[in-house]
Amino acid sequence: MHRAAGWVLRGVRNPPKTRSRSGTARSPPRGLVYGRHGEPPAVVQLKDLEVAKLGGSDVHVKMLAAPINPADINMIQGTWRTRGVFPEEMLLKVPRDIPVLCAATLSVNPCTAFRMLTDFESLAPGDSIIQNAANSGVGQAVIQIAKASGIKTINVVRDRPDLPKLVERLMALGADHVITEEMLRKPEMKDLFKSIPKPRLALNCVGGKSTTEMLRHLQPKGTMVTYGGMAKQPVMVPVSAFIFRDVRLRGFWMTQWRKDHAQDPAGLASMMDSLCQLIRRGQLTAPACTEVPLQDYQAALEAAMKPFISSKQILLL
Amino acid sequence: MHRAAGWVLRGVRNPPKTRSRSGTARSPPRGLVYGRHGEPPAVVQLKDLEVAKLGGSDVHVKMLAAPINPADINMIQGTWRTRGVFPEEMLLKVPRDIPVLCAATLSVNPCTAFRMLTDFESLAPGDSIIQNAANSGVGQAVIQIAKASGIKTINVVRDRPDLPKLVERLMALGADHVITEEMLRKPEMKDLFKSIPKPRLALNCVGGKSTTEMLRHLQPKGTMVTYGGMAKQPVMVPVSAFIFRDVRLRGFWMTQWRKDHAQDPAGLASMMDSLCQLIRRGQLTAPACTEVPLQDYQAALEAAMKPFISSKQILLL
Repeated sequence: MHRAAGWVLRGVRNPPKTRSRSGTARSPPRGLVYGRHGEPPAVVQLKDLEVAKLGGSDVHVKMLAAPINPADINMIQGTWRTRGVFPEEMLLKVPRDIPVLCAATLSVNPCTAFRMLTDFESLAPGDSIIQNAANSGVGQAVIQIAKASGIKTINVVRDRPDLPKLVERLMALGADHVITEEMLRKPEMKDLFKSIPKPRLALNCVGGKSTTEMLRHLQPKGTMVTYGGMAKQPVMVPVSAFIFRDVRLRGFWMTQWRKDHAQDPAGLASMMDSLCQLIRRGQLTAPACTEVPLQDYQAALEAAMKPFISSKQILLL
Repeated sequence: MHRAAGWVLRGVRNPPKTRSRSGTARSPPRGLVYGRHGEPPAVVQLKDLEVAKLGGSDVHVKMLAAPINPADINMIQGTWRTRGVFPEEMLLKVPRDIPVLCAATLSVNPCTAFRMLTDFESLAPGDSIIQNAANSGVGQAVIQIAKASGIKTINVVRDRPDLPKLVERLMALGADHVITEEMLRKPEMKDLFKSIPKPRLALNCVGGKSTTEMLRHLQPKGTMVTYGGMAKQPVMVPVSAFIFRDVRLRGFWMTQWRKDHAQDPAGLASMMDSLCQLIRRGQLTAPACTEVPLQDYQAALEAAMKPFISSKQILLL
């Protein structure tokens, strides 16, 4: 149960001999491990780890920052640790000029957003997409990457006390429309489609009713991609949507994409180049972060599990 | 609200001057028409129709036999009539040596089966597919076309008093496995997959629970195609099936395919050639039919609406 995908890697081939910024270079590597499934703050523990021996294509990796993603919380598949050894092909090189916070959050959310905007529909400037959970890490990356490509975004969020603030923040990122799930069901939606075309792509991280409503606005032959299920309810599709509107339903999981493209380093490099270019131009920023030192992991895990927390990404440093 | 797709056409360019087999050549054309939606036997009426004037690419068409398909019953989109005039490009030529009953049922069910087996997954001999409503017109065509291509079929049917007879009949058509919806849910299903691979394609004409169960047996990255919703319940998919098994959900509607391929007569001709070859070789037979004269349309419509009737296709002559 190791976790490497979200790490920041600077392409160091040999383990550092000098003290690093965080002063942990010579102490044994530590990591968050768990022996059983359960509530993350209860089952996850910070432990000293063995110093690994290097062989083959192995690279000794030092963690600078690692995000706590909802997927980690939902599944506790991953483990956060200060250092570890991994085969080079499992790791992602990030150029030095990319800020640590961007780099730490690059390999999961922006990559997921990039692939979903690229791999399912050929979108041209002026086309539109619709997404729910628009305030998630992936959602914010979708807004920014789409904006940089001239693609309009319709962003669905849950209603909440500070809604105007959230709307303002997503608009500042480049969102064209921000609506609540309630608005999605209202006939006024047709006014919205006077100014922009119906979406050819829908991105679903919720499931249940939200998904069914979103699907209603999809263009015929459009695609809905499911990459999460925050509502813990199945995706429900009226048979008529398949038969008479020819909608296509797909799924996406970044981890699987990387496995499927393990023999395609050029594809990965091309995506990373595109994303790093967007970061350098200021078109793709890291989500608002709360930085938490690794030893305070319990507070970090609890914070990551609170509802509406997704506006602030929790980072272990 | 005209209906031409299911007609048998013999490629007659001019209206017949002599009496036809059924003696209706000189009487005015009659047709089943309806002025409002409702229960088909109540709203559908047999009326004399105007003799149409021919122009452009129009062809005067005489009906020899036309099936009552479940889609007609569900939607009353179609109208059955003895003669009519249609643009040539809307019509399908059927070679003279194809029996009338095969020809009458060729353009909807076998075409639907052919396209669904062809357009979504590249199936090779030895691959398997799974379908529900296996006893429907499409289902029987799927069994036969798959068999002719060396593709194994797992056929799901509803339990019924005469199940052994139905199993025998579908096995005689070439089915590899016939199971009930109840069996689909049992752990014994894994024994079945010791002898054949998990299906890469699932064909869904039911919706609801049956669909969710069928989906569980689909290979990762496999496709489920929905072409009907007999259970009148939505298709429900666990989010995990999209994310971790990368299943793809699509829909199919033969009418839409023909619209989309209106400019591709070669594609249509190639399909018709393949199907006619199968018919000539005895590998594709018309489903068991009950032939009903047009004036007895009310009894025909009532019979077509009975549950479990799909084993016998109702044909108006």
